[in-house]
Amino acid sequence: MRGRNNLEVIELCPVGRVSKTNLSFQEIEIFEEFLPALDSIENFEYLWILFWLHRVSQSKRRVLKVHPRGDIGRPKRGVFSTHSPVRPNPIGLTRVKLLEREDNILRVKELDALIDSPVIDIKLAHE
Amino acid sequence: MRGRNNLEVIELCPVGRVSKTNLSFQEIEIFEEFLPALDSIENFEYLWILFWLHRVSQSKRRVLKVHPRGDIGRPKRGVFSTHSPVRPNPIGLTRVKLLEREDNILRVKELDALIDSPVIDIKLAHE
Repeated sequence: MRGRNNLEVIELCPVGRVSKTNLSFQEIEIFEEFLPALDSIENFEYLWILFWLHRVSQSKRRVLKVHPRGDIGRPKRGVFSTHSPVRPNPIGLTRVKLLEREDNILRVKELDALIDSPVIDIKLAHE
Repeated sequence: MRGRNNLEVIELCPVGRVSKTNLSFQEIEIFEEFLPALDSIENFEYLWILFWLHRVSQSKRRVLKVHPRGDIGRPKRGVFSTHSPVRPNPIGLTRVKLLEREDNILRVKELDALIDSPVIDIKLAHE
């Protein structure tokens, strides 16, 4: 499939989802078929979680300038120079502390994601 | 469209590409239609570049355990606990220093990406 600029459209498959969001911890459920990819992750303390900002609509993905922090008193900036969830490819990126792993569940701290957000990748982070 | 686990398949659109890779600096070309999203980026020094690891084949995306650093002397680990490019959604993540912006070209330092890699997102990073 080809999209704009004659480049391949890129297809992602969710590997899990954010299954619990408390103030003190959050949980990520990894889908069974991706379980082997978690092997040894319990030996690491800090992880990058890449997730899909699933509440950002298709029309919002076409918005390229926003008021920083939604403050209309501040001039608009390009979305790449803001932390806005609104962007052409709404991917969330959060560094978390891994508290515990139980089978396909990762219990983490400081995951800034809405419940049910699709998780698309997990990477090792430095301390 | 629905994929595995009855979740939406997620579609990304490349917003640019890695257009030059020298030892001392690298260049990212942002496609014209996304130019407004770059507004004010020249005021920031460190950026996260999210890019697509386009050389990872579809079959490699199904590999869930690898030898760390390709060293067969070390036991296999789940890809989420390695820095391997092989993973279900091969997204590269590199923190770069922005040296200069010239229209739709970002000249950066320490971008660990192959030439022609599709760029999918740019975010502000801390120092």
